[in-house]
Amino acid sequence: MSDLREKLHEIIFEADTPKGKSFDIILLIFILASVLCVMIESVDSINEKYGNALLILEWVFTVLFSIEYLLRLYSVRRPWKYAISFYGVIDLLSIIPTYLSIFFVGTQSLLVIRGLRLLRVFRIFKLGHFMNESSLIMRAMRASQTKISIFLFFVVIVVTIIGSVMYLIEGNYENTGFTSIPKGIYWAIVTLTTVGFGDITPQTDIGQFLSAIVMILGYAVLAVPTGIVSAEMVEQSKTQTNTKACHYCSSEGHADDAKYCKYCGEHL
Amino acid sequence: MSDLREKLHEIIFEADTPKGKSFDIILLIFILASVLCVMIESVDSINEKYGNALLILEWVFTVLFSIEYLLRLYSVRRPWKYAISFYGVIDLLSIIPTYLSIFFVGTQSLLVIRGLRLLRVFRIFKLGHFMNESSLIMRAMRASQTKISIFLFFVVIVVTIIGSVMYLIEGNYENTGFTSIPKGIYWAIVTLTTVGFGDITPQTDIGQFLSAIVMILGYAVLAVPTGIVSAEMVEQSKTQTNTKACHYCSSEGHADDAKYCKYCGEHL
Amino acid sequence: MSDLREKLHEIIFEADTPKGKSFDIILLIFILASVLCVMIESVDSINEKYGNALLILEWVFTVLFSIEYLLRLYSVRRPWKYAISFYGVIDLLSIIPTYLSIFFVGTQSLLVIRGLRLLRVFRIFKLGHFMNESSLIMRAMRASQTKISIFLFFVVIVVTIIGSVMYLIEGNYENTGFTSIPKGIYWAIVTLTTVGFGDITPQTDIGQFLSAIVMILGYAVLAVPTGIVSAEMVEQSKTQTNTKACHYCSSEGHADDAKYCKYCGEHL
Amino acid sequence: MSDLREKLHEIIFEADTPKGKSFDIILLIFILASVLCVMIESVDSINEKYGNALLILEWVFTVLFSIEYLLRLYSVRRPWKYAISFYGVIDLLSIIPTYLSIFFVGTQSLLVIRGLRLLRVFRIFKLGHFMNESSLIMRAMRASQTKISIFLFFVVIVVTIIGSVMYLIEGNYENTGFTSIPKGIYWAIVTLTTVGFGDITPQTDIGQFLSAIVMILGYAVLAVPTGIVSAEMVEQSKTQTNTKACHYCSSEGHADDAKYCKYCGEHL
Repeated sequence: MSDLREKLHEIIFEADTPKGKSFDIILLIFILASVLCVMIESVDSINEKYGNALLILEWVFTVLFSIEYLLRLYSVRRPWKYAISFYGVIDLLSIIPTYLSIFFVGTQSLLVIRGLRLLRVFRIFKLGHFMNESSLIMRAMRASQTKISIFLFFVVIVVTIIGSVMYLIEGNYENTGFTSIPKGIYWAIVTLTTVGFGDITPQTDIGQFLSAIVMILGYAVLAVPTGIVSAEMVEQSKTQTNTKACHYCSSEGHADDAKYCKYCGEHL
Repeated sequence: MSDLREKLHEIIFEADTPKGKSFDIILLIFILASVLCVMIESVDSINEKYGNALLILEWVFTVLFSIEYLLRLYSVRRPWKYAISFYGVIDLLSIIPTYLSIFFVGTQSLLVIRGLRLLRVFRIFKLGHFMNESSLIMRAMRASQTKISIFLFFVVIVVTIIGSVMYLIEGNYENTGFTSIPKGIYWAIVTLTTVGFGDITPQTDIGQFLSAIVMILGYAVLAVPTGIVSAEMVEQSKTQTNTKACHYCSSEGHADDAKYCKYCGEHL
Repeated sequence: MSDLREKLHEIIFEADTPKGKSFDIILLIFILASVLCVMIESVDSINEKYGNALLILEWVFTVLFSIEYLLRLYSVRRPWKYAISFYGVIDLLSIIPTYLSIFFVGTQSLLVIRGLRLLRVFRIFKLGHFMNESSLIMRAMRASQTKISIFLFFVVIVVTIIGSVMYLIEGNYENTGFTSIPKGIYWAIVTLTTVGFGDITPQTDIGQFLSAIVMILGYAVLAVPTGIVSAEMVEQSKTQTNTKACHYCSSEGHADDAKYCKYCGEHL
Repeated sequence: MSDLREKLHEIIFEADTPKGKSFDIILLIFILASVLCVMIESVDSINEKYGNALLILEWVFTVLFSIEYLLRLYSVRRPWKYAISFYGVIDLLSIIPTYLSIFFVGTQSLLVIRGLRLLRVFRIFKLGHFMNESSLIMRAMRASQTKISIFLFFVVIVVTIIGSVMYLIEGNYENTGFTSIPKGIYWAIVTLTTVGFGDITPQTDIGQFLSAIVMILGYAVLAVPTGIVSAEMVEQSKTQTNTKACHYCSSEGHADDAKYCKYCGEHL
């Protein structure tokens, strides 16, 4: 009995063993297929034609995911801990909406919550060598977190001021779109991030002049987060290239031109 | 008497003491709340419904900020110096408009000036560890200031030439939007910064060909400010880690976590 | 006989000899000219006027390319290997459509397949010093491949979630463009990549608020691939200079123009 | 007589002396003012009101620039060499159009040629410390020239292929804007550079799917030129920070951690 649980745990939760890997890949395909179903179900023309087929597929996926969820609960040592973990909640959320749809007919919101099962895809990061590379990105992001936050804080303030001033300039004119300060801020964000939808555009000369300045400054400002992350990446990849390890204290992370271990002082 | 002033000064102006920190955080919340009021007041549908509530809130904030302003003037050693300082002026500007609105009814401009109180948010930079990180950004920005200026100078000239040429090409056609050279320059800025509103777009073949070239060049040009700031950030983060020096061989460039000199093996 | 084949091979396939280089440049001009013909043929107004001239030109190019193709097959040692190689297939694909157009009148698809002959332009990379520089870019791209893939994987997931949520928010309103989840994802991609066509834009307040957050985050996210490639480029350009090694102290990392070891002073 | 020429030359051509600097600054102001006149003259509403005043101003500037041009010709040692130099031609081009406008009434093209006098602004680079900083940018640009060219070459080919395919997909549908391959290429450039005007947008599902892929790839591709320039800037600023000079051979450009001159082998 315990043997079966042990084996199930190995297949379902681990990714290093051949069986575990196969299970993860099959699961991944099922998740992607089910998400695809949710997506195309929202397209009216497809839903009209293949609505029934999609409904059946949806139930097949839900039943399979339900079995998987129960097996996970059964095979894991502390079922409760898994159930309240991030992936546990996501796993549950990805099956509940279908069952709820029996009672609440046509609730569109459930369609999207069902889409949350996409988050299960992140399990892919268990699959081997993605780990190292993504951890480098993660470390660079975490290291530049504070700097990026300060930068975003600046951007939010700048954007609020620009949006307010643009509202003052353009707000009096008809059909400019600058009908309130929040709209002005929305425009400022759209402009400063160089997205530029064009749904709201300045019509007055002074408004266009000001927005030209905003854009040129945004051009230079755009360089800041890139510079932060680039510098951090250069830093991180520098520490990563050090494959040297001290024979005495087994420490890593020595510089390329290091001759002595920087932790214990022994010759490398 | 002088004791009270001393204590008030500590609470209001300093951020290291527990009381000073609490005061700053409460003040920050009030500022953000009052700015939010100004923002939603400009939304017509909200103003119609909750106009009176917002008016009362506005007066509450104004009175509180007025008391704070007077206390600042009272507690600081040289009131005049504070009054004409950057934050002093901002503090005053954030309360005056509400009082003025008694005499000048419905002046929209005052609404926006009131929004200037958002600038008070910058006081947050007194709050501890933001300092170091933001100073790095600041130093990198200051170091690349001249380069960025030259770059912007180039951009302004290029944009003026492109705008003039596009006016020459597109200006003769109806409803293209290129009605004058300033409009052409506005379009060139919108395009080169990759904002691309689409309110003015080239209609002629030659105009589209030229703008295609402008865009592809802008693609490469966009790399320049980013490169400048990135290089500067790499430089700054390098110099930041270089504070350690070996006492024996005077070598520098040791990593943050180094305990022994990597060149001679001595304890740092 | 074999001499002729040898000589033809030298002219057609090699790029280092004067004749080979001349042949490649002439071929390049013909390819570009023929692609230009395909392009302007698709413009209705030009096709009406110069349709016949373009048709004749098209046949001239096709006959020339056919002769070239046959000569290539003749001169190369293993004709079959060339025929199924990348360039062999492209060379064939660039002449077949014209012959097919005799039997299938007016097939527009053939027009575009003919445009595939543009791929033949990549032969330019045989031409000397482009090689080194482009190989640096290639190496940097290959080295950052996994990181970029992970990043794109993240972006795809994020974009799917944002698109689904935006569909939920905006989908109920008329003429917003968010008619299905795929449209929502399309919008999310257009926005996050800062392209911002403006064909689909959020109309509700909550939709605009959410998209503002998406844009500001996208602003910071945009920095990641740039940071990855920048760091890799810095790394690559560093390793490129590191080919010299001191014979005495075996130290590396000398500059390109170094004549003496910078660590021990011996001649390199 | 020769003394006067000498003095004039010092004032007009040199920028290091106080008089030369003052002359350059005054000239700069005049150039900017005259360009501003050209610009606002193109605005219809302003031209109607202040047309005469602008005409007079235009003639004042032209006469002043003519005098300056003659003085330059007079004071310089080889007048002919100056006349055919870049700045000599620009100086002449900036005065001729006004004189021509006497004979050819209302020629709009002349308006823009007059705008070419903006190029004279580049003389500002004679003004001292701009030199060093801009030369760094220039060197980085020149060093990355080949790489950027290869990259742009790639972009042009990619854009042509994407544009052709999009024409094939979208061309059959009415009012999509993809009326010819050149239009498709124009759209591809607008999209890949993230400008995104929105004047031409894909309407079909497959077209939107393809353009979504184009945008996401463009997202990663955008990183390449930035990475190239960033790496080059890091490289350049590295060589610049080396203030070390060999006492024996006076060579510069030694690495930060160099102990011996890499050119002559002497201890630094």
